[in-house]
Formats: sequence, C-alpha cells, structure tokens
Amino acid sequence: MFKSAVFNLKDATKEEIQTFLNSFDTVLTDCDGVLWIDNNAIPGSPETMNQFRKLGKKIFYVTNNSTKIRSDFAIKAQELGFIASADEILSTAYLVAHYLKGIGFTKKVYMIGSNGIGEELKAVGIRYIGVGPDHVCSDFKSMKPSELDSEVGAVVVGFDEHVSYPKFMKAASYLDSEDCLFIATNTDERFPKGGSIVVPGTGTLVKAVETCSQRKALVLGKPHAYVRKFLESCGLDPARTLMIGDRCNTDIELGVRCGFQTLLVLSGVTSERDLEKIRTEKKPPLPDVVLPKLGDLMALFPS
Amino acid sequence: MFKSAVFNLKDATKEEIQTFLNSFDTVLTDCDGVLWIDNNAIPGSPETMNQFRKLGKKIFYVTNNSTKIRSDFAIKAQELGFIASADEILSTAYLVAHYLKGIGFTKKVYMIGSNGIGEELKAVGIRYIGVGPDHVCSDFKSMKPSELDSEVGAVVVGFDEHVSYPKFMKAASYLDSEDCLFIATNTDERFPKGGSIVVPGTGTLVKAVETCSQRKALVLGKPHAYVRKFLESCGLDPARTLMIGDRCNTDIELGVRCGFQTLLVLSGVTSERDLEKIRTEKKPPLPDVVLPKLGDLMALFPS
Repeated sequence: MFKSAVFNLKDATKEEIQTFLNSFDTVLTDCDGVLWIDNNAIPGSPETMNQFRKLGKKIFYVTNNSTKIRSDFAIKAQELGFIASADEILSTAYLVAHYLKGIGFTKKVYMIGSNGIGEELKAVGIRYIGVGPDHVCSDFKSMKPSELDSEVGAVVVGFDEHVSYPKFMKAASYLDSEDCLFIATNTDERFPKGGSIVVPGTGTLVKAVETCSQRKALVLGKPHAYVRKFLESCGLDPARTLMIGDRCNTDIELGVRCGFQTLLVLSGVTSERDLEKIRTEKKPPLPDVVLPKLGDLMALFPS
Repeated sequence: MFKSAVFNLKDATKEEIQTFLNSFDTVLTDCDGVLWIDNNAIPGSPETMNQFRKLGKKIFYVTNNSTKIRSDFAIKAQELGFIASADEILSTAYLVAHYLKGIGFTKKVYMIGSNGIGEELKAVGIRYIGVGPDHVCSDFKSMKPSELDSEVGAVVVGFDEHVSYPKFMKAASYLDSEDCLFIATNTDERFPKGGSIVVPGTGTLVKAVETCSQRKALVLGKPHAYVRKFLESCGLDPARTLMIGDRCNTDIELGVRCGFQTLLVLSGVTSERDLEKIRTEKKPPLPDVVLPKLGDLMALFPS
C-alpha cells in the first residue's frame, strides 16, 4: 500500500491512513512493549486499541508471556485501560495446555515456570510439579535418582524467577530419557527495558536447559509453528489481519510467516537503531509499517 | 605411529606400546572423567599417572573445573592417590586470575561462580562480588539500578551451584555496558555422569548469560585460545606432549589445535557411541589413540 518498505505511518497522508485502517478486520497485538511495560500502560496504547474496537476490528492479545492465565491477563489489561476479555487472550501458558491436551498427554509435567502455566494445565486436567523455589541443599551433587518423579513425561520451560541449579539438574535428568517431551513457551532473550536493569526473558532459561540436556525444545510461542497453526485454525483472513509488535524476531517474524500485515512499534525491544541495521543489512523480517509508539495512531485516526 | 585413526591402545603390540611411551615427555591430563568422577578415583588412574611420573614424564593437570584453587585441587588429587603439587595444576579459576592480572584489570569482578575463582582473584589482588546464594525477593522486577555496583568492570561466569534469576539479571545489566568485560571459564555442557542424574556444567550458565546479555563471552578454558597460549608459553614441545581427556570437544580439540598427541578415554563424557559417530561422520576432532579407561594402560606398561 505504501511506497517503500518500512513506511513510517507518521508520514502518511490522510488518504493513506484511511486506506490502511480499511485494510484489516482483525488486530493481533503483542502486549509487553506495545501496550505496557511492567505495570504501566504505554501512553496512548489503551485509547488506540479501544479505537480499533470502536471501528469494528476483532482483537486478539497474542503474548509470549507465560506467567498469567488468560483471565488474569484480561484483568491486567482492563486495569490499564484496555477493553479485553479472557477469550481474546492468546498466551503461551494457554498454548502449553492446549498443545499437551491436543496430543492426549496423560503423564506429569516437570515445570521450570510459574503458576500461570500451572493453572492452565490444571484447567485441562494435566498434573505438574516444579513451581516455586528449589534451592541447593548441602551437596548439590548428592541428588538421588529417587528424587526424580517417574511419572514425568514432559519438561516445560517458561518464565521462572525461581530458576535454580537444582531445577536445571532435574530438567536435564528427565530429558535424558528420549521419551520425555521438551517444550518451551518462547525464546525471547529479554523483556522490554524500562530502565538500566536488564530483565532476562524465557529464552535465557530455554538456552540453559537446551545446553545441559543437549536437546532442542519444541517452542510454542511467537514466531514458531504452533502459534502460527493455532492462529490459522481461528479462521482469520491473513490478508486482512494486522499484527502489531515491538520485536522483529518474534512478532513481525510471526506476521510475515503468516502473511499478515505488520506494524512495528519502537516502544519495546527493537529500537530505531536495530531497525536501521535490519534495513541496511536487508535481514528480514521487516515490518510493513512502523510507529514510535502505538499511541501515535490516535492523532492519525480520521476525526 | 599407528596404522589407522583412533587406534585402540589395547590392540597395540609390545613394541608399539614402547614406541608410544617413548614418544612424549610431557603428559597433560584432564581430571573429571579421566582421573576421577566426583570424589572417586577411576580405578587404575592413580597408578597410571604415578607410573608416567616414574618414567620421568612431566605432568600437568589441566582442568576446566573452576570450583577449587590449585592447592585444593592438589590435595584432592593426593587424597585419591595421585602424586600432585599445586604448580602442576592448571585450572580455569587460576586462568581467570592470570588473565585479569595480565591485562592490568583494577576494577571489581561480578561473579557467577564459586570461591575457587574468588580465592585465585584474591591472590592477585582483584576484588569480586557475587559468590553465594542470591535469591529472588518479593518482586524480582523491582531491582533498582542502585543495587548494581558501579565499580564492576567484568562479569566472570564459572560453575555456580547457587545460580539464580537475580544473578542472571545482574550479570546482564552489568554487561549492558560495552566496557564491561565478559569472561567465562569454560563451556562444558555437563559433568561426566556418575549415574542417572545429569549434572549441568558451566556451559549451561554461560549460554544463559550470553542469551540475556546478547554478548559472547571470552572463554579461557579448553579448547579455547587463552589456555592454548598459556600452554604454549610453558615451553612444551608439542610433538612430545600427550593430552589425555574424556571429551572430544574440549580435551582432544585442545590437543589437536596445539599439535599434541591425543589419548581419549571413554570413562567420562564422550562415549564409544559418540566416538563412533564422530568417526563415521568424519567430524573432527578425532583422538590419535583411545582406551576404555586410563587405568587400562597399567596392564600395557612394559614390566
């Protein structure tokens, strides 16, 4: 629709904005870095999303975050000013439960992860262990095989602030059996930065477990195959779907692979400098359009 | 000397064994998986090493293990029946201190590691923080920049049984400054297995920190450049040096890169099956000779 790759919507004419807004019926949006950072809405994001809804767009919140169940995500979104319901949330905690239920998994899950995944598993009747602190006791090397649960048939790695050496040891020991499934929610290296503290993402933990288990995880979240198949099964018309994200290597990559239109916002992980690098090195995926932040659309909506 | 690649010394004639034993003056040996597993000597290893010494060979213990200072390594070796002195030990804890001293480092080290590295740093007058537990408090995301020590100029990653999410967060935050050095002792994925429990190695932690920091560590241990340069500076004659190890991708790789002769033992990480795979896929590094375990040499020494 626009003349060049990675068109900045701020430079669009009124007609171009109108054509853009008419070009999709469904909006898929990432959350962290697009709608909010930590517990603060990014200014203008709630109004923009709610405006999409007013214009009759169908909305899905598609997040790699695995720490909350869908209803808690919806509550967080509402508290920050977004209109949202649980069935509009597609989180990786939900995807894990959906995947394991789909393959008829009946064993137990050993989890490096949080209650978010746990609650979604419980909802589909799958048992799990591993949530919460598991600290080193006297001699870590003295762990006995009897400390492993013989019913475990899958290791799931999601975000876990309590990750620890014993957890890596248990995960790798379970995964030493080829029959044990190895599933990861996502491979995001970091969370969007609010300040000078770097907040490591699930990808950090996945890489660690892949290293000690010497196996590759099946990754369910963006931009991997399972979430793509899931979205495709929802009956969206790819050509009339807009994917909004703050990360080229997850959100935009997912959009490109699915044939969606893509909007990158620079309020999260991918910076203007990163984008420039991707553009000059011609390393895909490139978004169709870009905006400093989602809320900038508010000034562009036709009055 | 032997007819084919990866010759099993057990198949050698008396003359071949004699030629082999005459072909080197210096023995470099890995420790975990060759000499011992955990706190148990591998049967025959002490006698074999002590026999090399009797034959006048110079001996160095070259280990990627970073958890002990050199004198404690020597004591462990002695307790298990090996003749050994601290100045024969080349451990990665020592290499870290040697490296930082060598470049005139005067700032503080943030360490994911153990007292072994700490003691070696102290011995060369380098300050460090980070050893020991660092567990998640109430809200991990509430870490303040003031919790970072502005004097830190290097992150060192070695083996750390107390590794935790706050440690990853701090390491990645320090490494967000390009001036901060990033050093790893080694990248071994696992320790040699004593039983069904997989014991993750330092490589597991290094991969995690590399992922969240989005940087690559300078790795000092086998088979990387720094330990090679260190050994080369010791005035060894490569052609008359034998490297013994249980891992193709560290010990044998180091030996091959340095032009040493190489002996792989199958009592540790690399299994006969792994070796067969390496051989059929013609994926180097291949050792010159192989033995099920080092102690098997005892029956082959000329009487």
